[in-house]
Amino acid sequence: MGDLVENKEWYVAAYCPEGVPTSDHLKLRTVSLSLASDSIPDNHLAVETLLLSVDPFLRGTITGTVEGLFISQFQLDQVLTTFAVVRVIRSKDSKYSVGDLLLNGYGLVAEYSIVPSSHIIRKIDTSNGISLSDYLGSLGVPGFAAWLGIEVLGDPKPGSNVFISAASGAVGMNAGQLAKIRGCRVIGSTGSDDKVNLIKEQFGYDDGFNYNTESDFDAALSKYFPDGIDVYLDNVGGKMLEAVLNHVNMNARIPLCGMISQYNKVWTERDGVRNLLNIVGKEVRMEGFMIKSYLHRFGDFVKYIEGYLQEGKIKPKSKINIGIESFLESLNSIFSSSNIGKVVVQVKT
Amino acid sequence: MGDLVENKEWYVAAYCPEGVPTSDHLKLRTVSLSLASDSIPDNHLAVETLLLSVDPFLRGTITGTVEGLFISQFQLDQVLTTFAVVRVIRSKDSKYSVGDLLLNGYGLVAEYSIVPSSHIIRKIDTSNGISLSDYLGSLGVPGFAAWLGIEVLGDPKPGSNVFISAASGAVGMNAGQLAKIRGCRVIGSTGSDDKVNLIKEQFGYDDGFNYNTESDFDAALSKYFPDGIDVYLDNVGGKMLEAVLNHVNMNARIPLCGMISQYNKVWTERDGVRNLLNIVGKEVRMEGFMIKSYLHRFGDFVKYIEGYLQEGKIKPKSKINIGIESFLESLNSIFSSSNIGKVVVQVKT
Repeated sequence: MGDLVENKEWYVAAYCPEGVPTSDHLKLRTVSLSLASDSIPDNHLAVETLLLSVDPFLRGTITGTVEGLFISQFQLDQVLTTFAVVRVIRSKDSKYSVGDLLLNGYGLVAEYSIVPSSHIIRKIDTSNGISLSDYLGSLGVPGFAAWLGIEVLGDPKPGSNVFISAASGAVGMNAGQLAKIRGCRVIGSTGSDDKVNLIKEQFGYDDGFNYNTESDFDAALSKYFPDGIDVYLDNVGGKMLEAVLNHVNMNARIPLCGMISQYNKVWTERDGVRNLLNIVGKEVRMEGFMIKSYLHRFGDFVKYIEGYLQEGKIKPKSKINIGIESFLESLNSIFSSSNIGKVVVQVKT
Repeated sequence: MGDLVENKEWYVAAYCPEGVPTSDHLKLRTVSLSLASDSIPDNHLAVETLLLSVDPFLRGTITGTVEGLFISQFQLDQVLTTFAVVRVIRSKDSKYSVGDLLLNGYGLVAEYSIVPSSHIIRKIDTSNGISLSDYLGSLGVPGFAAWLGIEVLGDPKPGSNVFISAASGAVGMNAGQLAKIRGCRVIGSTGSDDKVNLIKEQFGYDDGFNYNTESDFDAALSKYFPDGIDVYLDNVGGKMLEAVLNHVNMNARIPLCGMISQYNKVWTERDGVRNLLNIVGKEVRMEGFMIKSYLHRFGDFVKYIEGYLQEGKIKPKSKINIGIESFLESLNSIFSSSNIGKVVVQVKT
């Protein structure tokens, strides 16, 4: 490793208020970066990126307007950050050694970076048989969101009727398995018949439906929830949320994890939900959550999930795209109905 | 009092799925009722009605469809029931004596009735200086709803920014005063300049606006909530709720008490709320509630409110309409923007 590296990185060239981000908005550039010892401040690490987490919330960081998810916007010309698995090249922090694998909560979408060690969430121990990509999936952002949605906010009882939208996505696949572990009856919606089979066969969902073919959501929910819905983990918003509100049971809980059907629209163009009055009559609790507010629970989450992963009671699934060049395409793939499981970009092995 | 009385009563002649109920839907009839001792079963009371509570939720009991508020529908030909102050004429329950004034949770909208004593919520002691009509207002359904919305679900801190819609209505006037007792900054919306003055001068609101003249709700909320909204007690739903969601602070709470702007429409015609994504980013908790689920807290509520009423720290206001004939007109008056305070029908003195 020389002191100076040619470093590829994705930066914000222009904001994208609506529609799908393109290469007009996010661009790849190559810059020189010094990894020389005197370029690394105390309590910092020089790292190389192995894996980058590709998550829907990133869409909310480049709209140029602060609404909806209310996430801080990346500035123009700024390099994106996301959860990342990185390897230490040089260390100016005695807690970390060269070669350590780390989970970085603010990983630059770049091949190399110099990071404050305060950004490191945990060391990764590869001896436990868990795949590196799962640290970004079942043990990363989407797994944590699923755990918060089911274990903390939804809190279904054994036998409860649980509905999960975007069921084959990174959050949905974990959430369904967590609800099954709790003894619930779990139904998912997803975008193809193949994915319906997948959530039943691989993730243990009791049943599911393809929202593209069963597009009368109200009829679909009548069919799959003859006894109503007790917990709905909402990942999509819009028309599906409206349909769910016609099928909720008393005191149903609706943790709002995200609304992937709505991200690419300005708010005035989003689907209006007309039946919020049902929330009154059914005394529903609808609650939004962002993982950043629950980081104090991350340790509890990891402890809970790791055992189930090792026992095979939670089966993860990742789509690993090779090369940092694939980052934009990977981001957009989450918004297409072909996506399955956790999307990860492998930068290095 | 003879054994047989001519009894006027309001019954459901036809359901009213949308629009304002008329004399086609609710009709007054006169029937003969025996109050003879052998007509009164054990643990029942013959009572005469003094005051009837007129509440928005009644609108939801005669739509003929179970959605929205999901309240049991009155059957066709059935006499309506509501909270009522009644006086005992004959008693077959040793706990109650002739002349006792009682709060009846299922008071028939009739001059006389024979009621199971299990329907009686409490005895009314007139020696404490509290007006009888306040037992249906600040100490009745709307007061209880206000207490639940502010004290139990909204739970604002001193200094919190609290917004209350329908602020001069029966729930709003109590809720604003409860939030002021908690040390909050309280702003209300209401339907006329006179009512804005009223909520400031009589109910202690810090400020308020007339939604008919300041009809750009987003601009109004920017003006009255430069620091955002921490708690919104929603009594109206629709466009005001949508506007509020553009002004909520992190972890804002929105107890949904009712949606008076939406009751007279079928659900597919109701206003769609397009910015629910803000609930995610701001991690808002929106929760519907119905008083029937909290009746175990009624005693706590009464204890809390009675003292403030006697000290004059909660100032009630009622509109008392005379004669059971005025019931339909009284019900519809709640849905007009001229309504102020608690509407009560005085059947007898």
